[in-house]
Formats: sequence, C-alpha cells, structure tokens
Amino acid sequence: MNGKGNSAVRGAEKPFLKALAGEASDRPPMWLMRQAGRYLPEYRAIRATVSGFLELCYTPELATEVTLQPIRRYGFDAAILFSDILVVPDALGQEVTFVEGEGPKLAPIRSAAEARTLSADWIRQRLAPVFETVESVRSKLPDETALIGFAGAPWTVACYMVEGGGSRDFTEVKRFAYQDPKSFQDVIDVLVDGTIDYLCAQVEAGADALQLFDTWAGVLPDDAFAAYVTEPARKIVAGVRAKHPDIPMIGFPRGAGVGYARYLDQTGVNGVSIDVAVDLDWAAKTLQPKGAVQGNLDPQRLLVGGDGLNAAADRILTAFSDGPFIFNLGHGVIKETPPEHVEALVERVRGR
Amino acid sequence: MNGKGNSAVRGAEKPFLKALAGEASDRPPMWLMRQAGRYLPEYRAIRATVSGFLELCYTPELATEVTLQPIRRYGFDAAILFSDILVVPDALGQEVTFVEGEGPKLAPIRSAAEARTLSADWIRQRLAPVFETVESVRSKLPDETALIGFAGAPWTVACYMVEGGGSRDFTEVKRFAYQDPKSFQDVIDVLVDGTIDYLCAQVEAGADALQLFDTWAGVLPDDAFAAYVTEPARKIVAGVRAKHPDIPMIGFPRGAGVGYARYLDQTGVNGVSIDVAVDLDWAAKTLQPKGAVQGNLDPQRLLVGGDGLNAAADRILTAFSDGPFIFNLGHGVIKETPPEHVEALVERVRGR
Repeated sequence: MNGKGNSAVRGAEKPFLKALAGEASDRPPMWLMRQAGRYLPEYRAIRATVSGFLELCYTPELATEVTLQPIRRYGFDAAILFSDILVVPDALGQEVTFVEGEGPKLAPIRSAAEARTLSADWIRQRLAPVFETVESVRSKLPDETALIGFAGAPWTVACYMVEGGGSRDFTEVKRFAYQDPKSFQDVIDVLVDGTIDYLCAQVEAGADALQLFDTWAGVLPDDAFAAYVTEPARKIVAGVRAKHPDIPMIGFPRGAGVGYARYLDQTGVNGVSIDVAVDLDWAAKTLQPKGAVQGNLDPQRLLVGGDGLNAAADRILTAFSDGPFIFNLGHGVIKETPPEHVEALVERVRGR
Repeated sequence: MNGKGNSAVRGAEKPFLKALAGEASDRPPMWLMRQAGRYLPEYRAIRATVSGFLELCYTPELATEVTLQPIRRYGFDAAILFSDILVVPDALGQEVTFVEGEGPKLAPIRSAAEARTLSADWIRQRLAPVFETVESVRSKLPDETALIGFAGAPWTVACYMVEGGGSRDFTEVKRFAYQDPKSFQDVIDVLVDGTIDYLCAQVEAGADALQLFDTWAGVLPDDAFAAYVTEPARKIVAGVRAKHPDIPMIGFPRGAGVGYARYLDQTGVNGVSIDVAVDLDWAAKTLQPKGAVQGNLDPQRLLVGGDGLNAAADRILTAFSDGPFIFNLGHGVIKETPPEHVEALVERVRGR
C-alpha cells in the first residue's frame, strides 16, 4: 500500500493536497518546517507574553495566532499546527518542562516499571486545547491553504522520553532498547496508540493532512529501523486510516538514507519529507514513483541568502519537476534567518 | 578507478590486506574503530602519565604502546596508529588544545585572511613524532597484523577548524562555505595538500593501508558532498597513489547514505567503512561489487553485550559473507564498554 493509489484525497483543490494525491505541478506548493517560530518578530512578541513554551502550545488563542503568522506574511500553501512533539509524553503522564536556553527536560523512563506508568487513555482529554487550536486555525485559513496536523514518531519521542531531553549519542535509549527490548516495545506501543488517537482527533478538528516527524530515525541499524521506525509508522498510518481512510500522510524519517525507499514502500504514507543530505537524482528516480517528495533545501542556505540560495532552490525545483513535489527545507528554519530571505525564497519558487 | 582492479596490493598475506585486495573470506579480518582508548585500563594508565592529549599523540614511545595494547589483548588483524585527526590543523599552523571533558578547542578560521595563515609546508617536520610512532609500531607488530595509518578528511577537519571545536549544527562552517565558497575552497585545498603529504609520510614510515575519516560527511546536500567530500577524497587518493601506487585506502564518509556508492565509484578507494545506519542488504548488493565493505556493528550493541550482541554480529557476518569484508563497528568503541564484551565479540567473529 502506498500513496500512488490514493487519488480520493479530500479537499484536492488545494495545491498542497494535489501534490500528496500524486500530481506534478509547474508551480509546486511550498511551506517550511518551523515556519512559525523565533525568526519572526511577530512570533517573538507573542512568545514574550507567556512564561512557558508549553503554555503557548496549550493556549488556543495564542497557538492559533502564531500558526497563522507565516501564512499572512508569505502566503504558504500549508499552515502547520503550532505545537510540540513532546505534548504526547506530557499527555501520557510523563513530566515535561522546557528550560529557557536548555531545551526540554523530562523525568526519564528507563525501566519496565517506569514504562507502566504511561497511559494512552487521556490523550483526547489532556490535549483538548490542541484540538481547539486546530479548529480555530481551520476557520481562519484561506480556502486554498491546507492545514497540517502532526506528531512526533514513536522512536523520536521515545528518545526524549528515555534520555530525559535532547541527546547526542542516544546512549540511554539504545541501552534500554538493546537491553530490555520487551519493555522498550511497551513504550513504543503506548506511543503508537497515543499517536493514533492524537492524530485522529486533529483530523476530526479540521486537519487536512498529517506529518509524522522521526527526527532521530538515522541513528538506528537497519533491523532497529524496521522495528522502531517503519513498523510503528505503518501501524499509525493504518490506525488513523481505519477511522479516516482518505487522510493524506507524510513521513519524515530524517537521516534514513536508503531507508526512505523502504519507508515509502512499507508504511502507507502518501509522501516523504527528505533531509538535506538526500541525493536529488536518487530521490527523483527512486522515491517520486512511489509517492510525493517534500524537501530539502539546507536551512543554512536560507540563513545565508543571496545567489547561493537561488541556485540551491533552482536545483531542487528542477530535480523534482516531473513528479509530485512539495518545496520545503530539509530541516527547520534557523532562528537567526532574516525574514526577507524567506520572502526572496518564496518569490523564487513562485516565480518560475 | 576502484578497488576491483587493485590485485597488486602489497603485503597481501595479511588477512586485512587480502580483504582490501577484493578477496572474500570465511573468517573475515576484524579491528575496531577507537580500539585503543579509554575503555582499556592499560590505556587509562598511560594517559594518566601525560597532562595533554596531544602530548600523548606526539610522544612516540607512549603512542606506540597504546597502539599495541588492543593487539596484545585481542589479536586484531589490524592496528591503527594512535593519533588524532586534529594534528593536521595543528601542523598547518592553527592553535589546537584539548580541554578535559570539553573536547578540542581551536582558534577558529572564518575568513580569507585567516585561511591564508595556514600552510601545508611544515607537515613532515611538525608531525615527525607521528611518523616515528608508525615506524616503531611497525617494528613491533606480528607479521600477520596490518598497520593502518589515517587522517581526517578535509570536510570533517574543516568543520573543527571553522567551528573552533565540536558542533551540532555546523552553522559556522556552512556559513563560511555558502557565503565565501572561494576562500572555503582555499581551506579545503590546503587540507588536501597537507593530507597527501601526511599520508605519504605514514606510508614511508611503514603503514600498510590508510583510512580517511569523514565523520561529518552526512550533513551536506549532494552538491556540497560532491565538492567537499568526494572530490577532495579523489584528489587525496590520486596524490598518495602518485607516490605509492599500491597503497590500499579506505574511505569513511559517515552518514553518506546513498552517497557511499558514488564515493566508491569516484574516489578510487579500495573500500568503504560504513556507519551503523547503512542497510546491510543494500550495502552487500550495491557496495561490495565495487570494493571492500568495513563495518558496521552499533557500538552501543558492544556496550550492552549478551545475546543481542551475538545476534547483531551474526547478521552482519552473514550479510557480507560473499564479498570482501572487514568486520568493524559503525563508529568508535564507547568508553564505558566492558573489555570482556570486546573479548566475546572477537570470539564470536573468529569462531564462525
């Protein structure tokens, strides 16, 4: 099962959804990962009104406003819900805090007993403000603009849950997975269940499409990639589609290399978001026949701007012009990016 | 040009060199990246006798001893010179220090003017103690054990030189490369020249084979990968072979994904070291026909040990049994690894 056969994607008049339905376009749709964020002065102004980052995610009025800011400024083809992948562990019962300048801190889950404290039963209740945001954004978006809901994929969320925050070597999460695969599978399973429920509720609130972010997929050997990346994604896609058969879904197994092809073949997603390191010709030849490709400008190119940015954008547009394609970055917008560089990029992509 | 035609590899009675000459074996040769290091108590004892890390690299008697320690303990098929990739910028004229617990610190090179302060003229003179170590190790190694010389590849060394140390986002080095590609190319060029000279001198001192470590190859878009990873490696292989036509060389463009195939095709190396994320079946099918494959056990598997370690080693051995193969890790030994886990791994690989 893959994206090719999925021509009944709803709302297919939106350019973003047309690409996910398998259509090529002379003027591909575009949005940018982390398009709502600290590089925008209007975002920083809203952020300054709340004390905690999660408070921003859980206040529908403010989360709606920051979701819409980049749409107003740049007219992107898709808005992405402003939220964080760690709202799921928060709703599963794990303590999550964001420390200014240090990133997220979680009370780590590293044993069978700690894994048993998690429950997927409260997702809809605890994350009600997120669904309210989706509904509110949906009512305020232009007709041609798609709304993307999202979640972190189980492996990546588990990395934060077990490490207790960001990590460079993933020592604790790999130790847990390799030493006690059964208990680690319990963590993955509760994340699969919770994520299905979380994504379904976003669709019911008005999301037009969903993206699953697996930021740390690239640190796993192929057997662990199959167990903790591909198989959970397949279950999530199947679980969401059981309730919402036509919802388009994008996977982002960042750093998967050759594994992107297997991911597209095995999970049922309509497309993949590719990281900056993915070879353009390989992706056009190997991935586009299986589904839509989204990506993959280096955010550092956007930070620097100028002729190099134009040339890099043109190479990507040319490489993917014959198949379904969504222009995006290969990773999120860097906070020091000048907003006028984003403006220049939009003109470049639109102007072709 | 690639490894296939290179059957005249010298010293081909050593199992490690046979693999690099293209021979498959029922009992593949093995060594481990960072096999000499902090996980060994005998290493820590030597390390405690010197104040600075570079002092250890530049004291032939001590560097020889730590190079030989894992050979005595485990009988690996290859010893790798104990040194550091940052001795090259040190010899090019950049200030390099190692701060305990913080890693390397370098006075960063971020402009054309700073790039002009570097010179490849003093490599042989300033790194004379390294070549003395190679000679000394060579004289003490068993006949069947190969000696691997090495260097950091230009892109990875440039990352440290421009960032001024380790990095997570490579913001400064990418900014330099994207903003002023001409001056950045000057840095790459001086590294290519210095690395050729450095590797040639290691061969002349007795190294049987060479490995080029490109640890950060995986963060680059494909055009930058071609310019800063593949092309410098091709020049270095050609430059070294101009003086030493038969020297076997291994490249390690870590995180290159699909790019490993292009790297093997274009650089002239005899083999590639592959990281933990590389799909085994893809590598056996795509890479082994072009050259030897070395890798790719997850070091975290070795840390944890037990049945999972055995199963993971067996999968790798089976996947690569039909072509030229060197058993290794996909990254360096983790310092907390119990030495008895390494012993168990050696028995597993040897016992088949």
